[in-house]
Amino acid sequence: MASSLSALIEALRRLPGVGAKSAQRMAYHLLQHDRQGALVLADALHAAAQQLGHCERCHTFSETALCDICSDTTREQRLLCVVETPADQAALERSASYRGLYFVLMGRLSPLDGVGWRELGLPLLKDRLVDGVDEVIVATNFTAEGEVTAQAVVQLCGAQGIKATRLARGVPVGSELEYVDLGTIAHALMDRR
Amino acid sequence: MASSLSALIEALRRLPGVGAKSAQRMAYHLLQHDRQGALVLADALHAAAQQLGHCERCHTFSETALCDICSDTTREQRLLCVVETPADQAALERSASYRGLYFVLMGRLSPLDGVGWRELGLPLLKDRLVDGVDEVIVATNFTAEGEVTAQAVVQLCGAQGIKATRLARGVPVGSELEYVDLGTIAHALMDRR
Repeated sequence: MASSLSALIEALRRLPGVGAKSAQRMAYHLLQHDRQGALVLADALHAAAQQLGHCERCHTFSETALCDICSDTTREQRLLCVVETPADQAALERSASYRGLYFVLMGRLSPLDGVGWRELGLPLLKDRLVDGVDEVIVATNFTAEGEVTAQAVVQLCGAQGIKATRLARGVPVGSELEYVDLGTIAHALMDRR
Repeated sequence: MASSLSALIEALRRLPGVGAKSAQRMAYHLLQHDRQGALVLADALHAAAQQLGHCERCHTFSETALCDICSDTTREQRLLCVVETPADQAALERSASYRGLYFVLMGRLSPLDGVGWRELGLPLLKDRLVDGVDEVIVATNFTAEGEVTAQAVVQLCGAQGIKATRLARGVPVGSELEYVDLGTIAHALMDRR
């Protein structure tokens, strides 16, 4: 096999969830049908790996010391929303219903995967909390690990005497009760208003 | 979201089988845990997309006009093995039991995916066949599409008056009959020697 082809297959295997077979398929596809795409991807990887750092305040990926949201002075400066990933942050932004700042954990507590208190950067959140925060909205995912992470964040807020709230659980907008899972219905009943 | 991050996620989606979610997961993984890997992958993509062409004789990916195998004069020059992909070729080479040349189709006939006679480069194979070939071993995969492709290659050989053989179907070495599928057993019985 040509050496630059086997090098490419080897490099593609570094992507999470990509084994030998998928790496081969990806390499053949790019070389056979989408060389332009291969070059675009190469440039995007270079740019991201070299330019992206972390925002000093919210810890999300950012090309500048302060990300766009953290440097936006029109946002509520004393309201902080804690999310797991930049994707969760993007989802909240798309909803256009939140005007405060964020703290992005870049993961969730998962001791089995070796992600503990320190690896998750919770000490950074602790530093952020003393920096003028009135309320923390905990918007980690409603999964087992997300809930454990939420618990840790709530405790951290409690220790600093800061009010912490959690996103409401309930029936998704636009859904029919018949198709909503039982746990969600139970929560929606409990948290009824 | 930072622009180089969203550009990276967008570029990763060009990989086959990678949707929005996987692309995000890949981007976060590379940026958070493996920036070195991102740079290695970027360089490998660049090198492969710019250096890899096709071997003039066997049509596999090659950095030179003739690939290593085609330019190896110690191999049997009049024996040709037709395979679907460079990966299949590599598997045959690993078996160390074939000393002829190859023709790599770079795919299989699949009209539903728009891969017909011409897209598969069968005209190239036709040109190759008049170039001093005594026997063609058809080693396409034993899938529905591979069999159709084999049929087409056999017809092509017949038209040129060249002997065409197919890899033997049978029970894999090291396997127990109990766990071998019925179609394979049926073929092994039919082709018994």
